[in-house]
Amino acid sequence: MSITAPAGFRAAGVAAGLKSSGGRDVALVVNDGPRRTAAAVLTTNRVQAAPVVWTRQAVSDGAARAVVLNSGGANACTGPEGFTDTHRTAEHVAAVLSAGAATPEDEVGAGDVLVCSTGLIGLRLDTDALLGGVDAAAAGLAADGGDAAADAIRTTDTVSKQAVALRDGWSVGGMAKGAGMLAPGLATMLSVITTDCVVDAATADAALRAATRTTFDRVDSDGCMSTNDTVILLASGASGVEVGLDELSAAVTEVTASLARELVADAEGASHDIAVTVRGASSEDAALAVARAVTRSNLFKAAVFGNDPNWGRVLAAVGTVPAEVAPYDPLTLDVAMNGVQVCRAGGVGEPRELVDLASAREVRVEVDLHAGDAEVTVWTNDLTHDYVHENSAYSS
Amino acid sequence: MSITAPAGFRAAGVAAGLKSSGGRDVALVVNDGPRRTAAAVLTTNRVQAAPVVWTRQAVSDGAARAVVLNSGGANACTGPEGFTDTHRTAEHVAAVLSAGAATPEDEVGAGDVLVCSTGLIGLRLDTDALLGGVDAAAAGLAADGGDAAADAIRTTDTVSKQAVALRDGWSVGGMAKGAGMLAPGLATMLSVITTDCVVDAATADAALRAATRTTFDRVDSDGCMSTNDTVILLASGASGVEVGLDELSAAVTEVTASLARELVADAEGASHDIAVTVRGASSEDAALAVARAVTRSNLFKAAVFGNDPNWGRVLAAVGTVPAEVAPYDPLTLDVAMNGVQVCRAGGVGEPRELVDLASAREVRVEVDLHAGDAEVTVWTNDLTHDYVHENSAYSS
Repeated sequence: MSITAPAGFRAAGVAAGLKSSGGRDVALVVNDGPRRTAAAVLTTNRVQAAPVVWTRQAVSDGAARAVVLNSGGANACTGPEGFTDTHRTAEHVAAVLSAGAATPEDEVGAGDVLVCSTGLIGLRLDTDALLGGVDAAAAGLAADGGDAAADAIRTTDTVSKQAVALRDGWSVGGMAKGAGMLAPGLATMLSVITTDCVVDAATADAALRAATRTTFDRVDSDGCMSTNDTVILLASGASGVEVGLDELSAAVTEVTASLARELVADAEGASHDIAVTVRGASSEDAALAVARAVTRSNLFKAAVFGNDPNWGRVLAAVGTVPAEVAPYDPLTLDVAMNGVQVCRAGGVGEPRELVDLASAREVRVEVDLHAGDAEVTVWTNDLTHDYVHENSAYSS
Repeated sequence: MSITAPAGFRAAGVAAGLKSSGGRDVALVVNDGPRRTAAAVLTTNRVQAAPVVWTRQAVSDGAARAVVLNSGGANACTGPEGFTDTHRTAEHVAAVLSAGAATPEDEVGAGDVLVCSTGLIGLRLDTDALLGGVDAAAAGLAADGGDAAADAIRTTDTVSKQAVALRDGWSVGGMAKGAGMLAPGLATMLSVITTDCVVDAATADAALRAATRTTFDRVDSDGCMSTNDTVILLASGASGVEVGLDELSAAVTEVTASLARELVADAEGASHDIAVTVRGASSEDAALAVARAVTRSNLFKAAVFGNDPNWGRVLAAVGTVPAEVAPYDPLTLDVAMNGVQVCRAGGVGEPRELVDLASAREVRVEVDLHAGDAEVTVWTNDLTHDYVHENSAYSS
């Protein structure tokens, strides 16, 4: 259980035939209230999939009743027809959920339905199959349906990603998918976070943005930003517990941090998870820029795959960040890999032979800029044969 | 013949024992004049190798007598000791060349010797071996020594890179090395260009910058900028032919364009050379930013390796460029791959099955932003198993 851990939520995941594997590919998450607070953080890519355009508009009133998600097709770069497909999907979900409405207030409009899609770009969805999946999912909605929903949004994910943060009388649950194309401005990832606390839309939005800024946005598996990235927070208020911004941010961050770590651990073809920590920076932005430069160096990432503590490639990457972005003196830079100070004051430190990269999946790289007090950690993965294989064969 | 094609130059390449392979690893290029005009374009990486720091200072007077280059070690991140090694190398070259001086004016100072190094970062050079190599190279200097010099600067290059532009009574010759870590702000590349025209230092500098801006700077093999990139232009004046800026720029550009294309063709582990042309941009900078975003997308590059015309990954990369950098409407974007219009107006165009990527090494991607008249082409390579292999095994 994850998104169905908080009270007031039902979910389902079904196989609708969108995935060639025949696995689950449609998920439905319904907020039964009593409140229907919603917030979303969406990709900053200018090329936006139809469901992203739809969801941005649908969530702008701070409320939503349901989220429908599909794998097996991104519905991106599909023109007006693709947008019509998304619209039709939302209308269908609304109609199906309204069919069981006990009172007029329980009826659902298309604008109360958020939509997420993931898969290949540039292909129309099989809408008939998708709508059939919606029917099946609606029929299967359950208070313990979180696992099935988390399974249905997988693409190349080898495992589903779920997390829960328990608090006194309320909780936060979350699911996510994303196994490649992970980058700041969000990964190719879809994530739905639920909570049963009582919170207004503005606070929910602020809490979600605070959480993603320091978690999902600090995963940079391969530097590629998706057209479909979506993170949604739904709050049912079913616990009756009112919480403030700090308290909600902390709980949502706990969940998104866990999910982000799971995404890195399952990134396409990776054999190492790499935490790049930059400290001694003049500002958080400066630390972030340096960390991202390192996490985007193919040469550095390929060296880690080879268990080669090639710290020169770390320095070469650090050196690409302009001085106006991150002030530092290249002759004071320190670099440690898995605790061994391989570079001291921009020159040779401890012998690189002391660094053991082969024994563990997790690798820690620490860069000290000696230019201030700010510190940031960005996670990435190594660049492997399997990454090349999976991403050269993905659409074939 | 390449750098020794223009009159007034001698060169040599010898094996000094710096490379574990036992191949040539020290090159010497001497400008016998009568003029000793020189210019250089150096890496913009803030972490700069000792020879880069040295050469920047030595060339600042617009004159140089010789260039000494070594493979087998970058002498980067080697601290004050590394700088002393570079200084000592320049002094040794100066002393050896002065030993044969016929007149006091023929004597060479260390400040007349430019130094280039390439190889692993973070290791001291074997200076004894290097200076021995300088002695051998000086003894072997020859008016047809260009081939040997071009061979001696290779690292993972499978072939040496040379080019010549012949003009009426004068010429330009060039050699380059660089087979990975190729990126804007220059590739991990060393290049020496020679000419026998009569030109002042300011014109030589302007011509070299104009040439590199549209050639070497538009190669982006793997997005990684080196600590050692150096391009040097030496002008002997031996032809007696005076040329203007435009004429010299054109001839130098002809040589650097040819060398740049050779670098792409020999990039580490590549199976495709990819020309990304962005047209219809509001400015050259806008076109360049979009082209670079595409050439740096690992997902796109891995798809090309798989002969998969995955144009969605092109659009996803284009979409990461901020609107203030490159204004365009995502719903008007066109993309063609090898002449097939796979994406029209941001949506699905001709069937991707019509694109043949398998039959040729060269792949052409054309993006039309429909936002102006500027056009730029940036060259890159696909992301392959061999790239990962070479770069994970490089220092081991």
